[in-house]
Amino acid sequence: MNLQAALYLIPTNISEAPFADFFPQGNIEVIREIKHFIVENIRTARRFLKKCDPSIDISQITFYELNGHTDPKDVSSYLQPLRDGNSVGIMSEAGCPGVADPGALPVSIAQKEGLKVIPLCGPSSILMSLMASGMNGQHFAFNGYLPVDIKERERKIRELEQLSIKHDMTQIFIETPYRNSKMMESLLKILRPDTLLCVASEITDPLREKIVTRRVDDWRKEGYEIGKCPAIFLIHG
Amino acid sequence: MNLQAALYLIPTNISEAPFADFFPQGNIEVIREIKHFIVENIRTARRFLKKCDPSIDISQITFYELNGHTDPKDVSSYLQPLRDGNSVGIMSEAGCPGVADPGALPVSIAQKEGLKVIPLCGPSSILMSLMASGMNGQHFAFNGYLPVDIKERERKIRELEQLSIKHDMTQIFIETPYRNSKMMESLLKILRPDTLLCVASEITDPLREKIVTRRVDDWRKEGYEIGKCPAIFLIHG
Repeated sequence: MNLQAALYLIPTNISEAPFADFFPQGNIEVIREIKHFIVENIRTARRFLKKCDPSIDISQITFYELNGHTDPKDVSSYLQPLRDGNSVGIMSEAGCPGVADPGALPVSIAQKEGLKVIPLCGPSSILMSLMASGMNGQHFAFNGYLPVDIKERERKIRELEQLSIKHDMTQIFIETPYRNSKMMESLLKILRPDTLLCVASEITDPLREKIVTRRVDDWRKEGYEIGKCPAIFLIHG
Repeated sequence: MNLQAALYLIPTNISEAPFADFFPQGNIEVIREIKHFIVENIRTARRFLKKCDPSIDISQITFYELNGHTDPKDVSSYLQPLRDGNSVGIMSEAGCPGVADPGALPVSIAQKEGLKVIPLCGPSSILMSLMASGMNGQHFAFNGYLPVDIKERERKIRELEQLSIKHDMTQIFIETPYRNSKMMESLLKILRPDTLLCVASEITDPLREKIVTRRVDDWRKEGYEIGKCPAIFLIHG
């Protein structure tokens, strides 16, 4: 394969589903040709590459770590191979680089310098939950994490509900797994009975994926069980 | 393959790229088992199925059309096979069903009845352009089409720029191909010189894809050429 030199944005798995169920074969052909990867976590990245193709020789690959500990000043140097004509890949811990994770910085530098950027296709909990929620996909917003402080979170939930009513707009947000139950408590406390709430958990997991949309009133009546698993929440008032 | 009975949301191609470059092999295995499809356009859907697997026997498949001409009252009946225990697929004209197209209605009916909904993975111009723009992927909104009327469109562009500044939020919208040039004119007229504008066109096309982020000032200076091709626009002030 003759790979065009570019910054490739490589989605990674968001569950333990078989690789071929959620990644195009074409991604593997691209990954095989790349020797420089900017990654959120080196161990996870190595494991992902081995899952893509066990014959990949990891010892020939240079990894550049990009996470909360990275000095932003160092990030530009990670793109040096690309300036020299060699492709660089970006992989985040899970999902699509640059979307709800730190990958956007090297991409913005590449764009500023006019370097070629090519996104690959892969699973996204935001997009897949939106499709499956049945909510408005013509107009939606992703809000990342809501505030941890309970009063601020409740205020934010109320604000998002108002926005969704006013603009006929789906509002999407995430929570860290161990706070899922607290989040559900806040949502069922604050939201109006008629508001639709979709809870999507363990997306792409062939056995455990659950994407359920109900009126808040029905969630309250029928109860819910949400474990400490990756989940994403959508509301439409 | 023993397919779980569900409403499957099946992304379709957004360019003429080879199928394996942007679709997981797993999608084909699912598609092969489905005999009922809700589709935006039957001809396009037939072509897509043949592209997935030339051995699929189209004469064995029932199509249900869902587009501007469909009476919403008919849509519920399209889900009857699923109520009877047989999987139904939804495919839009291009991209992900339910996102920026009419697919959300049958999904919302399925959710209301507690029927299982399973999204598959495939290319999305919204998500792929966002990844490659280098703009904020922690907080973003998709706004569909902007108003056609020039004054209203300009007002809307100003409003989206203000929102993106105020909330550090990427604002995304689309335009029909033959109005791309008009849209660029409006954008370069209205936006502030420092605002970042990403124009992403022909996403996933191996030869023609172009995803470029520049300051508005630089777009003005360096000029641009945007044909009558599928494009998506992102701004961050």
